[in-house]
Amino acid sequence: MTVQLNETHDINLRSWVASANNAETDFPIQNLPYGMFRRQGSNQTFRIGVAIGDQILDLAAAHAVHAFAGYTELQGGHFTAAVNGQNLNGMMGLGAPVWSALRLALSRVLREGSSQQGTLQACLLAQSAAEFALPAQIGDYTDFYTSVHHATAVGKLFRPDNPLLPNYKWIPIGYHGRASSIGVSGQQFRRPIAQTKPPTSETPVFGPAKRMDYELEVGIFIGQGNALGDVINMERAESHVFGLCLLNDWSARDVQAWEYQPLGPFLAKNFASTISPWVVTLEALAPYRLGWTRDAADPQPLPYLDSADLRDSAAFDIELEVLLQTEKMRTDGTPPQRLSLSNFRHSYWTVSQLVTHHTVNGCNLNPGDLLGSGTQSGPAPEEAGSLLELTEGGKKSIALSNGEQRVFMEDGDAIIMRGWAQKEGVARVGFGEVVGTLLPARS
Amino acid sequence: MTVQLNETHDINLRSWVASANNAETDFPIQNLPYGMFRRQGSNQTFRIGVAIGDQILDLAAAHAVHAFAGYTELQGGHFTAAVNGQNLNGMMGLGAPVWSALRLALSRVLREGSSQQGTLQACLLAQSAAEFALPAQIGDYTDFYTSVHHATAVGKLFRPDNPLLPNYKWIPIGYHGRASSIGVSGQQFRRPIAQTKPPTSETPVFGPAKRMDYELEVGIFIGQGNALGDVINMERAESHVFGLCLLNDWSARDVQAWEYQPLGPFLAKNFASTISPWVVTLEALAPYRLGWTRDAADPQPLPYLDSADLRDSAAFDIELEVLLQTEKMRTDGTPPQRLSLSNFRHSYWTVSQLVTHHTVNGCNLNPGDLLGSGTQSGPAPEEAGSLLELTEGGKKSIALSNGEQRVFMEDGDAIIMRGWAQKEGVARVGFGEVVGTLLPARS
Repeated sequence: MTVQLNETHDINLRSWVASANNAETDFPIQNLPYGMFRRQGSNQTFRIGVAIGDQILDLAAAHAVHAFAGYTELQGGHFTAAVNGQNLNGMMGLGAPVWSALRLALSRVLREGSSQQGTLQACLLAQSAAEFALPAQIGDYTDFYTSVHHATAVGKLFRPDNPLLPNYKWIPIGYHGRASSIGVSGQQFRRPIAQTKPPTSETPVFGPAKRMDYELEVGIFIGQGNALGDVINMERAESHVFGLCLLNDWSARDVQAWEYQPLGPFLAKNFASTISPWVVTLEALAPYRLGWTRDAADPQPLPYLDSADLRDSAAFDIELEVLLQTEKMRTDGTPPQRLSLSNFRHSYWTVSQLVTHHTVNGCNLNPGDLLGSGTQSGPAPEEAGSLLELTEGGKKSIALSNGEQRVFMEDGDAIIMRGWAQKEGVARVGFGEVVGTLLPARS
Repeated sequence: MTVQLNETHDINLRSWVASANNAETDFPIQNLPYGMFRRQGSNQTFRIGVAIGDQILDLAAAHAVHAFAGYTELQGGHFTAAVNGQNLNGMMGLGAPVWSALRLALSRVLREGSSQQGTLQACLLAQSAAEFALPAQIGDYTDFYTSVHHATAVGKLFRPDNPLLPNYKWIPIGYHGRASSIGVSGQQFRRPIAQTKPPTSETPVFGPAKRMDYELEVGIFIGQGNALGDVINMERAESHVFGLCLLNDWSARDVQAWEYQPLGPFLAKNFASTISPWVVTLEALAPYRLGWTRDAADPQPLPYLDSADLRDSAAFDIELEVLLQTEKMRTDGTPPQRLSLSNFRHSYWTVSQLVTHHTVNGCNLNPGDLLGSGTQSGPAPEEAGSLLELTEGGKKSIALSNGEQRVFMEDGDAIIMRGWAQKEGVARVGFGEVVGTLLPARS
């Protein structure tokens, strides 16, 4: 896919939704991410919304008042059904040309001077008055392992003699995760109870996990899928991606260490994963594409994982931040404290490579499937995307500004992740945030 | 759960569906498994069916003619909605008391002398005239590794120095699998193309997998699930299991060997898995329960994986057979050839232990989730549940009766798995079969 900018990316566009023109908003008119919302405390079904400034445009309501009347791609029963969906799966299945037409239509009707302003004003809800659901019904969730920095750091802890396995630089390592326990930002979950084997014990013990951690990831929502047996090749891979979100893949490190061989993590990961409510489309991120290169010492990708576009536009320049908010911080008014700042550009494997690798054997993807990027640690220590790395496997504690200390997570701790893309001469495109809170173990 | 027999298990019961009284049928009136069927070649939606002899009883049709009128558990909107479902998920969610009431009702209306015979005759379709769908919409698929014989044999091949890892006898090892590529018996799938690293090559190569294999497994369908954060303890675990089916977890061994570390199998397994159309309830299997013991040398299970019932009734005495039918056999009329015969009784971990372990950390299960038992190899070499084991890692070829030889699967090979429980003085309870065929790789 060649990345092209169009009128929707113009930095000079302003919206009649005033808050969208604030230079610091995550949701200017150049972004237009999708999510599922309803009025807080109501028991209505969730509806598709588009974030604009501090507001949400109700997409079905906008369609009902003929906001998209001039666009042939946005007519007919399929589109109407998708727009009225109780999740984004229908929209995801419509395909890239429809997503693109809808983005253009949204950009135009939300612009200053649009004749639709009067009608669409009634289709807005303040984000502060909304609650959110998962953007999609996630059929299958796959987690990858694309940060070579994370893989090396974690590998050192689990296998000191053999940190980075020989397959790492050839295969985008991935494994299947649990879809049922994925929740939307605001998810609160109990500290898992499970079997672990402390180094000091001859036999395993049973109890609450002690080494609770987060993982800073980017989530990739699949749009149109592929039939079983078909491959989505590199050239077409991005047209099958609906958009990106933030993903916190919670991990219990002590559980993981004891259970993960030989078939991979299981109870260490499947008790909860949390994603942001907003899905940012690849088109919104077009100005933030970067070339992708391999170090001279690294093997070049096999041809099935290579493409002409790869070199100039395969990576994404997205800042990724993790903050900790302890229970004490909430009480004493200390603001959340940054634990790390990384960037998706450090990923060793690209989004296209993940999609193509996943399907090269004929595995079928469906609209709404979620791929995780794996923990996005950067090369510097302060760019580490997990406590496991920041504390060097639990050996070093982190001093917090209010006098507390942390090695792993304590009950009541909330982890906040934020993501945004920003550079001179281009509108900021943000992901909002994903928050999750660790509750005490079941008693 | 204490296993109790009731009138539905009486070996003397006979059905007015004559073929159900054949001593060799998998589907006597004492079985009554569920599946999703429709008339072959029609494009109607699939409906819930109950196998009886060589026929299928259309459950919604039977309900519509008031076949279950006398049963309070089988009335009301929830039951009617479940019975009319396009998959078994609704029925699975109703819970064990309803399943049990329905089994009793079905047993009575299908018995010789039932006053309903005249009405229900019109609700039958011959199995030979039917086609099948997956019994449930499978939200999440988890595969376990419960045969210590399989784990040891495979471990020897992948890790000669370290065949059985120290966690094996403490934890029911499991990992998440791919739900989207699970198909029903009759599934045909292409030989996967992927990256492998032959021992003779310095770098990986890309092409059709060479070491194609099957895995003989039992599938476990979850009935009622649990909320995120709750555990299903051992005492209640079986009441959350709707029933068992046959499962062939196809595997590409050369892909697996190169990709599986450190996060487990991925492309080696997710291109296809095939299950039988019929789900046999635990109640039907009640006469075939066995005690479960650990060898004196083995560790006793941790308390959360233990229960009073475990000792006398936790295992299932189910014969499991694998047959190979090559393309040449189909042409020259040679019958399919048995490759192995094993038994689910050899499982090191029980169904209850899998359910409890899966949820002990708070992971939520949903109706229709599928757990795989892992390859059910028995202690003897001829009880091995995969070619990998039968051929000692591809070193020994298998001579077929028509002069062909096999090490791993060749294009056109079909694998047929059958399962049944049978003993003196008890009605046979069968699973039918699951068939899958390997097609040539995508060209």
